[in-house]
Amino acid sequence: MKTEGVIAEVIKKITPLDSAAMAIARERLDGILKPLDGLGDLEGHLVRVAGITGNARIDLSGKAVVVFCADHGVVARGVSQTGREVTSLVAENLAAGRTSVCLMARVAGAQVVAVDIGISSPRPIPGLWNHRIAPGTRDFLEAPAMSREEAEQALEAGIIVARKLAGQGFRMLATGEMGIGNTTSAAALIAAMTGLPASEVTGRGAGLSDEGLIRKIAVVEEALRIHRPDPEDAIDLLSKVGGFDIAGIAGLCLGGAATRIPVVLDGFVSGVAAMLAARICPGVRRYLLPSHQAAEPAAGVALRDLELEPLLTLRMKLGEGTGAVAALPLYDMASCVYSEAIFFGERGMPPYVRYETAVEEPV
Amino acid sequence: MKTEGVIAEVIKKITPLDSAAMAIARERLDGILKPLDGLGDLEGHLVRVAGITGNARIDLSGKAVVVFCADHGVVARGVSQTGREVTSLVAENLAAGRTSVCLMARVAGAQVVAVDIGISSPRPIPGLWNHRIAPGTRDFLEAPAMSREEAEQALEAGIIVARKLAGQGFRMLATGEMGIGNTTSAAALIAAMTGLPASEVTGRGAGLSDEGLIRKIAVVEEALRIHRPDPEDAIDLLSKVGGFDIAGIAGLCLGGAATRIPVVLDGFVSGVAAMLAARICPGVRRYLLPSHQAAEPAAGVALRDLELEPLLTLRMKLGEGTGAVAALPLYDMASCVYSEAIFFGERGMPPYVRYETAVEEPV
Repeated sequence: MKTEGVIAEVIKKITPLDSAAMAIARERLDGILKPLDGLGDLEGHLVRVAGITGNARIDLSGKAVVVFCADHGVVARGVSQTGREVTSLVAENLAAGRTSVCLMARVAGAQVVAVDIGISSPRPIPGLWNHRIAPGTRDFLEAPAMSREEAEQALEAGIIVARKLAGQGFRMLATGEMGIGNTTSAAALIAAMTGLPASEVTGRGAGLSDEGLIRKIAVVEEALRIHRPDPEDAIDLLSKVGGFDIAGIAGLCLGGAATRIPVVLDGFVSGVAAMLAARICPGVRRYLLPSHQAAEPAAGVALRDLELEPLLTLRMKLGEGTGAVAALPLYDMASCVYSEAIFFGERGMPPYVRYETAVEEPV
Repeated sequence: MKTEGVIAEVIKKITPLDSAAMAIARERLDGILKPLDGLGDLEGHLVRVAGITGNARIDLSGKAVVVFCADHGVVARGVSQTGREVTSLVAENLAAGRTSVCLMARVAGAQVVAVDIGISSPRPIPGLWNHRIAPGTRDFLEAPAMSREEAEQALEAGIIVARKLAGQGFRMLATGEMGIGNTTSAAALIAAMTGLPASEVTGRGAGLSDEGLIRKIAVVEEALRIHRPDPEDAIDLLSKVGGFDIAGIAGLCLGGAATRIPVVLDGFVSGVAAMLAARICPGVRRYLLPSHQAAEPAAGVALRDLELEPLLTLRMKLGEGTGAVAALPLYDMASCVYSEAIFFGERGMPPYVRYETAVEEPV
């Protein structure tokens, strides 16, 4: 794929993980007074964090969830159960710290960063980081959702946000979005990327009726028929059937990877965005960490494509990054065990014994 | 089942959940600015908490994880990869706040209560609550693990601990255990209760070798052949092939329910203990909340028996209550959204609209 400027620069910076740091982290985990792999999948994720940061000293003390807010022109087609005005109304409350993700982030000790990357409100909403590319996408049954330039700008905005947060000392980023209609765009994108039928990847979003779902599937099918996006070209995909919020998340993944910060993915929309990021730079995958498997039918498809297994399987469908925030305390707890637990051989414990190799005497 | 004294008293106190409080909680959840069921399974759990406490004002501010520590005589049969001395060594470090569950509980804001309910150490271990029934169970290939009286005493100890913590103002309890060999006892108990073959319910515990696993399965089969415990009689089951830690957890479930406090279950051993509690009083089930599905093969069997679906599926096998503690922040986050989120109709949001009933106009 031809990419220039900020995006090309970022691709160059996304290098393989640091295998030396990973080996040290694995050795440390195996020496802790606990069964081997006792923390389950979290152990592999901790090792990955060491590889991402290039440092076996794991420190996740600064965490931010970035909520990209944008409108989707396709909402005009009746694919969502609320009107597009809800995007800006929720964004206002998000900026004021009053929505679900804000409350959950308070418990999890994470900062919420709400970004206007394409809201259709007439005026900027106070409290949001302003990276607005345009006041919402176009209805992609009428025209491409955005231009190629806009798609690149939105990706760059995500990259810039990641860089800025890295500069502010954040050590773990989580993805989130608020954009009425964005599960329609995400369904079109994943159908195009995987070749799966619209009926399999299109869901009820925040709670669409049966009738609405049928309409939504038809819209996705029609959009792909009209635009025939190149399944390997992220910019083509985004410009034809994407959304600014989705592009922003993809950019955040790339920017996180380029600055060696792990990025915890939220649900379906974030998973699709990460798949786009992986089409721009396959190496980005190793910088991504899972949270939950959302209720949307293709949430699992995205996770499998990214080779991620969810930590949480509780059928959340709240959006805003809430699923990613829900997983943050797990990373914190695992990191605390990793950094502070006692080892075999310490504090009266028997010397370092790898459980798997412990000698067992038959009775 | 014939039960007397403390146990009989507790059974009488375990009443159905408060359906009025549950209805209020459900109404509240549906009015919050989020998709219906947006918090997924956590919504049902919050409603259940309201029903348990009889109060639609949910307050989970005091949380304790109770780690019952005990030795298992069957360890003499080579069913574990470490010696029984590890129980007391880990218990000492647990009391001193140095093990994995202590570190995770610090992150989760929960207090760790370590209880000696049957450790085989010569002297009591400072810092543990002393409810020792005996210095470990007997090897149940030689004799019943404990007497019926001891089984009842151990259940009562769990009940007393729950009561004491309720008296201290704790509002959510989590279960945990530390007892080398306890997955062997738990496997024997669940095989007896479900009729499933030992080979299906017996796992590697903290990391047993292939050889050790074969031996462990044979031990479970032999124990059931010798003792033929009554699958419906919890006291018979516990006394023949149980453990003091397992009895303690069962008691904690009963005591929590009797004092109207939700009890978050840890993994396989806790699930088996809860199944025993449900044999003593079926109504206890509704007072139990899930955390993770542990790596042990029958962990899912126990959860299904209890009609619980795990929130976390990350293959933990650490023990000590770590899986339950891992889930506590999820309950905290959900509770925070429940208590503090804004509603439809507030703060510029459109009036109360139940998503499911929102009118949709076709295009």
